[in-house]
Amino acid sequence: MRRRIFETDHEDFRESVAEFVKRHVTPNLEQWIEDKALPREFWTAAGEQGLLGLEVPEEFGGGYPEDYRFNTVLFEELSKASFAISSCVGIHADIVPPYIVKLGTPEQHQRWLPGIADGSIITAIAMTEPSGGSDLANLRTTAVKDGDHWVLNGSKTFITNGYSADLVVVAARTSPEKKAKGITLFGVEAGMEGFERGRKLDKVGQPESDTAELFFNNVRVPEANIIGELDTGFIQMMVNLPQERLGAAVYGLSHARAILDETIEYAKERMAFGQPIGHFQHTKFLLAELVTKAEVTQAFLDDAVMAHSAGELSAVDAAKAKYWASDVQGEILDHCVQIYGGYGYMNEYRVAKAWKDARVNRIWAGSNEIMKELIGRDLGL
Amino acid sequence: MRRRIFETDHEDFRESVAEFVKRHVTPNLEQWIEDKALPREFWTAAGEQGLLGLEVPEEFGGGYPEDYRFNTVLFEELSKASFAISSCVGIHADIVPPYIVKLGTPEQHQRWLPGIADGSIITAIAMTEPSGGSDLANLRTTAVKDGDHWVLNGSKTFITNGYSADLVVVAARTSPEKKAKGITLFGVEAGMEGFERGRKLDKVGQPESDTAELFFNNVRVPEANIIGELDTGFIQMMVNLPQERLGAAVYGLSHARAILDETIEYAKERMAFGQPIGHFQHTKFLLAELVTKAEVTQAFLDDAVMAHSAGELSAVDAAKAKYWASDVQGEILDHCVQIYGGYGYMNEYRVAKAWKDARVNRIWAGSNEIMKELIGRDLGL
Amino acid sequence: MRRRIFETDHEDFRESVAEFVKRHVTPNLEQWIEDKALPREFWTAAGEQGLLGLEVPEEFGGGYPEDYRFNTVLFEELSKASFAISSCVGIHADIVPPYIVKLGTPEQHQRWLPGIADGSIITAIAMTEPSGGSDLANLRTTAVKDGDHWVLNGSKTFITNGYSADLVVVAARTSPEKKAKGITLFGVEAGMEGFERGRKLDKVGQPESDTAELFFNNVRVPEANIIGELDTGFIQMMVNLPQERLGAAVYGLSHARAILDETIEYAKERMAFGQPIGHFQHTKFLLAELVTKAEVTQAFLDDAVMAHSAGELSAVDAAKAKYWASDVQGEILDHCVQIYGGYGYMNEYRVAKAWKDARVNRIWAGSNEIMKELIGRDLGL
Amino acid sequence: MRRRIFETDHEDFRESVAEFVKRHVTPNLEQWIEDKALPREFWTAAGEQGLLGLEVPEEFGGGYPEDYRFNTVLFEELSKASFAISSCVGIHADIVPPYIVKLGTPEQHQRWLPGIADGSIITAIAMTEPSGGSDLANLRTTAVKDGDHWVLNGSKTFITNGYSADLVVVAARTSPEKKAKGITLFGVEAGMEGFERGRKLDKVGQPESDTAELFFNNVRVPEANIIGELDTGFIQMMVNLPQERLGAAVYGLSHARAILDETIEYAKERMAFGQPIGHFQHTKFLLAELVTKAEVTQAFLDDAVMAHSAGELSAVDAAKAKYWASDVQGEILDHCVQIYGGYGYMNEYRVAKAWKDARVNRIWAGSNEIMKELIGRDLGL
Repeated sequence: MRRRIFETDHEDFRESVAEFVKRHVTPNLEQWIEDKALPREFWTAAGEQGLLGLEVPEEFGGGYPEDYRFNTVLFEELSKASFAISSCVGIHADIVPPYIVKLGTPEQHQRWLPGIADGSIITAIAMTEPSGGSDLANLRTTAVKDGDHWVLNGSKTFITNGYSADLVVVAARTSPEKKAKGITLFGVEAGMEGFERGRKLDKVGQPESDTAELFFNNVRVPEANIIGELDTGFIQMMVNLPQERLGAAVYGLSHARAILDETIEYAKERMAFGQPIGHFQHTKFLLAELVTKAEVTQAFLDDAVMAHSAGELSAVDAAKAKYWASDVQGEILDHCVQIYGGYGYMNEYRVAKAWKDARVNRIWAGSNEIMKELIGRDLGL
Repeated sequence: MRRRIFETDHEDFRESVAEFVKRHVTPNLEQWIEDKALPREFWTAAGEQGLLGLEVPEEFGGGYPEDYRFNTVLFEELSKASFAISSCVGIHADIVPPYIVKLGTPEQHQRWLPGIADGSIITAIAMTEPSGGSDLANLRTTAVKDGDHWVLNGSKTFITNGYSADLVVVAARTSPEKKAKGITLFGVEAGMEGFERGRKLDKVGQPESDTAELFFNNVRVPEANIIGELDTGFIQMMVNLPQERLGAAVYGLSHARAILDETIEYAKERMAFGQPIGHFQHTKFLLAELVTKAEVTQAFLDDAVMAHSAGELSAVDAAKAKYWASDVQGEILDHCVQIYGGYGYMNEYRVAKAWKDARVNRIWAGSNEIMKELIGRDLGL
Repeated sequence: MRRRIFETDHEDFRESVAEFVKRHVTPNLEQWIEDKALPREFWTAAGEQGLLGLEVPEEFGGGYPEDYRFNTVLFEELSKASFAISSCVGIHADIVPPYIVKLGTPEQHQRWLPGIADGSIITAIAMTEPSGGSDLANLRTTAVKDGDHWVLNGSKTFITNGYSADLVVVAARTSPEKKAKGITLFGVEAGMEGFERGRKLDKVGQPESDTAELFFNNVRVPEANIIGELDTGFIQMMVNLPQERLGAAVYGLSHARAILDETIEYAKERMAFGQPIGHFQHTKFLLAELVTKAEVTQAFLDDAVMAHSAGELSAVDAAKAKYWASDVQGEILDHCVQIYGGYGYMNEYRVAKAWKDARVNRIWAGSNEIMKELIGRDLGL
Repeated sequence: MRRRIFETDHEDFRESVAEFVKRHVTPNLEQWIEDKALPREFWTAAGEQGLLGLEVPEEFGGGYPEDYRFNTVLFEELSKASFAISSCVGIHADIVPPYIVKLGTPEQHQRWLPGIADGSIITAIAMTEPSGGSDLANLRTTAVKDGDHWVLNGSKTFITNGYSADLVVVAARTSPEKKAKGITLFGVEAGMEGFERGRKLDKVGQPESDTAELFFNNVRVPEANIIGELDTGFIQMMVNLPQERLGAAVYGLSHARAILDETIEYAKERMAFGQPIGHFQHTKFLLAELVTKAEVTQAFLDDAVMAHSAGELSAVDAAKAKYWASDVQGEILDHCVQIYGGYGYMNEYRVAKAWKDARVNRIWAGSNEIMKELIGRDLGL
């Protein structure tokens, strides 16, 4: 079904992102995959193009349309080229800025937002810990007050952009025993003594994104780097997670749809037993099912995007979007690999990379099991 | 997610339909199930309430809003009480009238439309034949010209409202050997000589709807009862099938959602092993999945309803809606039965009846396999 | 794959059962469906044929091969004709006798076993209660000692053979507060004062089996009718449930395989769009999958049958067999209905009846959810 | 359920293979993964241990038990450590030797079999071509007679062991236009002029196996290297494919079961929200389902292994085993990744590697779609 949510402005922005992808991403992707990281030039080019400031107010160099359709367009176009890049940009431009914009001090705004918007300050957010997975209420990283500093100790893992980030929003326990109500967010900056990165994690997919462990050994963080009020970090994360989840849903689906479109073309061209494989009824029905599933999912996500743009997206609807779309993404891509046959198992084929890249979307941003727990609770169960 | 397609007028109409259901359907349903038919009083009451004229122009007694959201509301409210009744009303008020309105002569309009709108003329449409299933191009029922009459011979089966219909739109072959291009539609009326009904078919579900075989033995149908141009019946059916399919999708989903809501309440109350069964994580996750699936499907159907109201729903999008929604309906209801345990297997429970009633929705109106064939072809496969 | 567990004796017995089915079941099935019960003649004919004594020692008129392959053959042949009859016979000949043989007194053996074997005493077993479902430890039916009698009060539901049974093994609480360790089994006989049957339950399927609610109002059961030791009923049920579950798996699968075989033949003959529907690749692949699934399941069940014949079948392996086979049964039959199209929705078609008959197999004998709980616990989870 | 097919000899052999794995595979696997190949020392060590001669008669240095349970044991133990190695050894020791033993000349036996058994001649088999996938009847590689040589031209792809093989059995077209009946097998040896290898293919998984493209540019193969009769290659491949497919099924399942066992242990230890994740009912039920599915599949495969050992395994039953087991493998591993959460996406975790390694098993050895085609045809569809 034709999508109905976009207007001229969004379509213009889509062209601009597509142009950026064509010029800056596609020609370099192979290299970045080999480097296992995005270079600083990627970020500054994206900043120049105005792709990193959708959540940054204009006075700090952003566009700030307060219309999630633009974020949607950005994610969709990026993920067609690289699911990993959409997630890196998602962390930097979609997840981190709202914390600073909504909770930060004027000084923090001045210090950080312009650099976020122009790509000179790469950001990350560090919630997950080795022991904890999705269980954010039980963080073990601690911050203890010492004069006008807080002393951080602990470690984080699976941190997207973690290896290259200049600024990391870190959730740490400031009040022991208070569980969810004892967590505070800190802006930890590159170069602070005791802040160290582990190696880049060797992931199943998404090699072009750097994902790292972070270690905090008596890192002295100045009071001025606290983001938001003391002990309110957990609720702030809860408030912002729906946007992260909607984003993951959006770029998960567009990623799968891009590959699905390519697979349909492949099925029309690839011959076996004297005819295009797409002509076999099994393939035809399968592709009909996958296209339907993709479009049905799109309708739901488009509704969610409109709701979020209107400030009305509930946490539970974001959870539905995230679990459902990432499941659909995985299912579509698994079938696409099968249709490509042996070539689908070769890393040089986009479908193979996509299959590996996508797998984590069912796990991160709150695993799909956590999503179902949230939905179930919302039903009163 | 909150649905966004309805406005005040639709909500008012919803209340009116709900009131009708409460007064006229619920108290009598048990009896109609036993009678294996809807009585004529049902139809006239529905006509009085203005439920049968959504596709009939005002001059002939209808409301004719040309806004499929009203049809949607009608189906949704009826199917909460009885999936079978929504399908009977669907045939009569949603499927048959467009043929007559769009293709009929002024005289046919005068003769039939007022009775359709007020419920005094019950209608059916007879496409399917015993030998043919969904393969409409190969009809064997024939009509041979004889003076100013056409002589019909053949039989039809699985005809909803077939036993009680006063007027049946019958597809018959007028040009042998021309396959799809040799089919014409005829208005066959009760009492015509040689037009006979078989017994009411004994169906797995939907006992309150009469479904019948129809036999045509040298039935002489006057020229004036041809609906539309000679030999154009197939294309006319193709033009009108999308509305039938969208309707089936709409009342299929609302039917399942009504039972799902009841099942969630049941899961909160039914105790086992010392707690409500909905509190067990398996049940909680399952219901979370089903609710998500229902809402995702709803988003797609609501888009389709809006598209259809704007005259833009393609045949292939209707096919997607029909196959997807009827699959979801079946899946939801099968799980609901399981959650009810032994009670889910007792006919007196709504969930048991719903499970049986729903099964045919994956088969009729073009089986889901036919839908996938259409979708696959649209992909160029 | 060719099955390898049967020897000549079993094949001979299979012929004998098949002959019985042909003579006594097939010609009368229509009538029994209408009567909503099996007549006493059925039971005595089965007894004469030696079908009811597989679990009864020879001295009491049984065959007692102590080889579950015979029970398997009996179930498989009966379920080809009627899933309901295999379950009725299962209760009477496979489930009830072991309680009496293993736990009963010599007097009880004399009193009941010959009648069980020759079909003159129809039996049932009453565990499930309206409030409890699969949660047997929380029974509310009570038995209070009064002299040399026990006074039973309570009700049972979903009792197969319950309407016609001459002897019902009833689980009742003899020690309040002792939960699982306070339950005792009683032989309640037709005609005892205060023992009343509710109406035959109106089930989704299996009309030819009578299923009833049973009411016990101050029923005075003589001490001599206690089966096994006081307060040991729960453990006895646990000991005997694996056989019930294996039986349900066995006749569930054979039931589905019989219909699947018929569906394959139907798919070869039924024409649509100019060719047999089985020739369409979608149907071909689907049937290939279902046949594979059936054979894979058969291999597991055959192993389980051999293990049980050797006295080595664990409760958890029986749980695996039951949940898996009943799921497969349901899945196969749902697809078979679809392949039959509209005819699959007509009660006169065996596939339609099978679909309805089978649904309860995922619910009874311990719901499939209970099975998974048992399996999960066995994994140490 | 306890497996019942193995006797003492098989268990002794299992210990011997396990010991070999422990000594020779596990300590070196990391290195081989990095090298993207198995070293020659692996092969000679395996030869010394007697692992490569199960299909080689004793006079040529093999064990030749003619009992596929030994091959099963070999595969199962290897795949616990590395799915890729079981497939490399499968090609060399299970797939290639039967061609030479059954079809080869006495001189070929002398020339090749001892080296196969002792690991000094590494072998591969080259059927698949870039253009053809599973469609073996349409090979384009040609062999044209020229004196007492045949001149080979063409290319092959996805050839396991292709980069390191000393001897490759190559299927080539000797009679143009005769399709399946014009194909002959040739033994092409390393060093023959015009026989070139492409780079090692960069696969999604299985890095430790070398997979390569092979190119034949006017390779002059002596008449003495024809394996079997001229133009009979296709039928010979058809005869031998069932063993390859059974092997793929066997090591596919054992691979998944090894990881599943580890995942169950992980679920007992990994804590989240204050309890082991395996204690959550969702995880518990999921693992119960996966274990059941694995055991049900094992029962079927064990039957197939016994049938094959007795020379009775049909091609269609091998197809059932291959498609079913590889599907189950993929499904189990996908769930295992999810249970590991973020760690499941890290290459250093066995579960992550397993997920990637397994994907191709649904594609190679005849894709699962081809298997369903074969099964469907066998049903007469």
